[in-house]
Amino acid sequence: MTTTQSTTGELPIPVAGAATSGGRQRTAMRTHMCGDLRSDHVDQTVTVCGWVAHRRQHGQSLTFVDLRDHSGIIQAVVDGSVDVRTEYVLRITGTVAVRPEGTANPALATGEVELRDCEVQVLSVATPPPFPLDDRADSVDEATRLAYRYLDLRRDRMQRNLRIRSAVLAAMRSALAPLDFVEVETPLLMPSTPEGAREFIVPSRQFPGSFYALPQSPQLFKQLLMVGGTDRYFQFARCLRDEDLRADRQYEFTQLDLEMSFVDQDDVLDVTSAAVLAAARAVTGGPVPPIERMSWHEAMNRFGVDKPDLRFGMELVELTAVFAGSGFKAFAGAEAVKGIRVPGGSASHNRRKLDDLTARAKGLGAKGLVWMRVGPGGELESPVAKFLSAEELAGIVAATAAVAGDLLLLVADEWATTCEVLGQLRNDLGRPPAGEGPLRFVWVVDFPLFVGVDPGTGRPKPGHHPFTRPHPDDVDKLETDPLAVRSRAYDLVLNGWELGSGSIRIHESGLQQRIFGILGISPAEAKARFGFFLTPFGYGAPPHGGFAVGIDRLVAILAGEENIREVIAFPKTQSGLDPLTGAPTPVTDRQLRELGVRVVTAPAPAPAPAPGQGQGPVAV
Amino acid sequence: MTTTQSTTGELPIPVAGAATSGGRQRTAMRTHMCGDLRSDHVDQTVTVCGWVAHRRQHGQSLTFVDLRDHSGIIQAVVDGSVDVRTEYVLRITGTVAVRPEGTANPALATGEVELRDCEVQVLSVATPPPFPLDDRADSVDEATRLAYRYLDLRRDRMQRNLRIRSAVLAAMRSALAPLDFVEVETPLLMPSTPEGAREFIVPSRQFPGSFYALPQSPQLFKQLLMVGGTDRYFQFARCLRDEDLRADRQYEFTQLDLEMSFVDQDDVLDVTSAAVLAAARAVTGGPVPPIERMSWHEAMNRFGVDKPDLRFGMELVELTAVFAGSGFKAFAGAEAVKGIRVPGGSASHNRRKLDDLTARAKGLGAKGLVWMRVGPGGELESPVAKFLSAEELAGIVAATAAVAGDLLLLVADEWATTCEVLGQLRNDLGRPPAGEGPLRFVWVVDFPLFVGVDPGTGRPKPGHHPFTRPHPDDVDKLETDPLAVRSRAYDLVLNGWELGSGSIRIHESGLQQRIFGILGISPAEAKARFGFFLTPFGYGAPPHGGFAVGIDRLVAILAGEENIREVIAFPKTQSGLDPLTGAPTPVTDRQLRELGVRVVTAPAPAPAPAPGQGQGPVAV
Repeated sequence: MTTTQSTTGELPIPVAGAATSGGRQRTAMRTHMCGDLRSDHVDQTVTVCGWVAHRRQHGQSLTFVDLRDHSGIIQAVVDGSVDVRTEYVLRITGTVAVRPEGTANPALATGEVELRDCEVQVLSVATPPPFPLDDRADSVDEATRLAYRYLDLRRDRMQRNLRIRSAVLAAMRSALAPLDFVEVETPLLMPSTPEGAREFIVPSRQFPGSFYALPQSPQLFKQLLMVGGTDRYFQFARCLRDEDLRADRQYEFTQLDLEMSFVDQDDVLDVTSAAVLAAARAVTGGPVPPIERMSWHEAMNRFGVDKPDLRFGMELVELTAVFAGSGFKAFAGAEAVKGIRVPGGSASHNRRKLDDLTARAKGLGAKGLVWMRVGPGGELESPVAKFLSAEELAGIVAATAAVAGDLLLLVADEWATTCEVLGQLRNDLGRPPAGEGPLRFVWVVDFPLFVGVDPGTGRPKPGHHPFTRPHPDDVDKLETDPLAVRSRAYDLVLNGWELGSGSIRIHESGLQQRIFGILGISPAEAKARFGFFLTPFGYGAPPHGGFAVGIDRLVAILAGEENIREVIAFPKTQSGLDPLTGAPTPVTDRQLRELGVRVVTAPAPAPAPAPGQGQGPVAV
Repeated sequence: MTTTQSTTGELPIPVAGAATSGGRQRTAMRTHMCGDLRSDHVDQTVTVCGWVAHRRQHGQSLTFVDLRDHSGIIQAVVDGSVDVRTEYVLRITGTVAVRPEGTANPALATGEVELRDCEVQVLSVATPPPFPLDDRADSVDEATRLAYRYLDLRRDRMQRNLRIRSAVLAAMRSALAPLDFVEVETPLLMPSTPEGAREFIVPSRQFPGSFYALPQSPQLFKQLLMVGGTDRYFQFARCLRDEDLRADRQYEFTQLDLEMSFVDQDDVLDVTSAAVLAAARAVTGGPVPPIERMSWHEAMNRFGVDKPDLRFGMELVELTAVFAGSGFKAFAGAEAVKGIRVPGGSASHNRRKLDDLTARAKGLGAKGLVWMRVGPGGELESPVAKFLSAEELAGIVAATAAVAGDLLLLVADEWATTCEVLGQLRNDLGRPPAGEGPLRFVWVVDFPLFVGVDPGTGRPKPGHHPFTRPHPDDVDKLETDPLAVRSRAYDLVLNGWELGSGSIRIHESGLQQRIFGILGISPAEAKARFGFFLTPFGYGAPPHGGFAVGIDRLVAILAGEENIREVIAFPKTQSGLDPLTGAPTPVTDRQLRELGVRVVTAPAPAPAPAPGQGQGPVAV
């Protein structure tokens, strides 16, 4: 009488609070959670509540009911026939007993025991769900899953993701609490901003024709909190951007937003590290390696991207010196020659695949891509081999540590192009899927203060924003060699994803004026464009800096999910629809009249109403 | 050489984290917080950072600088003259020394010590603030304080309020964490709802002519989380209502929102009690009495309101029986006669004041108000005394325990009117200001399920919403005596303010259909109006219930503030303006075109730009 159970209800990851509840979830209606029962409980009379995961009738004499709550599943043996179906909500009182010899189910944490002498109370009946509430739902059309999100959420995977997210928030707060951070809620109804990403706007009824905007970030307010003497601020900030959606972008996102006064970069990095490592430990249940640190220049040189994925090798190899005096002008004349080694890649890349890689490299901006197959004796097979000296060929093999069967890919171009193209190819060819491999956090620091020159004005362009502090060692190069000036801007990267960015800000007007001068922003223009910062700062701004960690992506990686929608309780589809509620919808004429606005487009075809839904909720 | 200090920087209330920081706030720029230094530190060389609170020059030889951060103030004695002014930002390194005999400042926690041999670094210069950053700013025009909120926030009062708010959030989370609550962020972009309070709407660019709405509450989503098996949910939910502002209402508010499955009322009340008591203890630093519990009927009978302020007496006294057979028809014929005793109120209420009270009572819906002054011998002086028997007069004195000098106020009317009018008068005459007296929490339970009868349909009207669960003892009276049916709806009240409300919900369709039947809602109408609940519930809903605690009001009471704007970092004015940023503002034509809307009113006169502000922030 073994039960086979595909949805075990056990959490593979020790999320805080997901272990047995130890009675903390006892209520007027239940004594235990389904997943808590063990052989320790044998002979105890317990009451559990939950949903029917499976029901199996054994003749007229016995019914087996697997009852599920978020903690797991318990098997109840009910005398006679009982009229319950899948997803009915039951309250069962019974006695815990060891299962008969040979019928234990090792796939269930409760699999050694079952409930006997059961009294069953039907709390709610249930229409059969439109898809099975187990792993098979992973292949169901996402719009259907979202339309029935209240059913989708019953699945182990979604409950686990919700609980991981909650554990991450709690762990990060716990890490900040002893450091005297003050949690401040900044406004959702903000001023509209002509620059920056596209924002959502909200018509004002009190001032028809005027609008609030929803926050893209609390940047302004967090810096004003520092000017206001708050010293250390944090918030899990809800932010919104009206940009087209994709797998890793929703209209709404959450960031751990923080700012600190009287600090330098290390202070911000230490605090942020403590928060994200606490989050990682809360999910993995074990130690997490400390966060590495790397300059932007090193990241570009070694990985060709400013968000390096350290889970795999295939680093960029410096080859410029090998071709310093080469007769092969394409290499000798290039600012930088670099290569990556694809271990064993020779056999798996036929000519068509190599042509595809070359096309990809050109699409990424390279003038070309040189490939080399490493033969059995270490010889290099390549269209350009004949242009290279034996010494050069040997130099390539030595520098890349190539062995027979490897594939080498070389780019010779401007330094930035060489790095970026090879960095993309490295990711294309080697990057593991989300959730695979270790957690490799890395701080990328010393971003350039300026990126290139505006062709119109001939002046440097700011890399981040014009309030980013220059590196203290480079301040004297601001006017003489601006493109060599590093900044106090930094990114946090996890497994090749940028989790967030931050900087130390300029707080004093003298330095700010120098930066504006380099950028060609006159005092009058500065006041008009940035008065909201400059005026408050004129009343005494402390040195300060901060950071923002993207929570959706962090949780997705920790949960092993590729798509952030899997770690958001009620996400929108990629077209911005909510198939559950039907939002967005037309509104009444009265609402629009009160706001002094009119719809000038024929309303878009009403989004298909969610299956079985009403017309949208009312406030109750 | 005593310093007198009006802004001490000390927090009178032991907010978590507001005591000395114990080195937790050490950074690259400072070793200690200003307010941390004590005689323990004597002879240590320390570095502190902060704002100049005061500067006093003593001849050419010495300058006294009081340096302020959020933790407090330290006096630094600088040799010679130093060119700093109020609100300059300084970094001072010096040696801690005991102040000279007789110059200690007991008003400062650091008042026994000072810094000597100081090295002063000016980090930022400062324009003089437009108002003094101490208690004198309390009398500054609020719009000015809000326009310079970044300066206003430097004041002790505001820093204290910010930190109290943060401590309240942390304490409530800590109380819920061991109870296996899952924190879930619900969407800010919701469906629009034709019923309920006025909502803010957000035009959709993807579907021009359609709109999202900002959440008035996450009610729909939290109940769907329960249907989704989440079992216990909480969130500090940001909610918005487009209703006219007043002292205790902003467009935006925060609520601790929670919901639980497989529970009855006591489970929800216990958990919520734990959270709010933890918040109160975190602010007061001491024990807080347990939360009392009172039925709605008792609250009305004794206090005349459903949110009784238990900080003072003057309870309503039942007098109906005293006049059962009275010759005074106004009393004998009334459904209820009640009175309140105003201790010593006789002398302070002349005829004009009594006339005002009578007018107030009539304005509140009473047919009249009877007043009685208690004379030196216990005799009652009153316009109606001559209509009452000696026995009745004695009965009044006995029931009210009136003594010489008291004022009695009596109302004879329908029960509800009698209670409500006297309840209002009781509050008018006796209610202490916010922040005075003890913290008196009370649960008001057993609200009526229906309130009165719709004159149009002759059917009962729902008291809360049609999904509120009836009291289990009253279910059999639903059809026969609906107005006598109590509900499982409950409110939490603190010092006469409603902090929030909640209920146990109806989860099963049979009971729900009975309620709809009583309300005269047909199955088709129910499906059309409430399908968003009914459809999900059809797939198996657990018994569940929840609560929402208004955080702004809770924090205001705990901080002793009358006005919730004092406990919000960046509030709007009562007209919905943000004088700091100038929001709301007109937006660009391009933005409106993309959204498919047009402004049909001439924009309201642009709100006056904030003093010294630019045109609004850009995203940086």
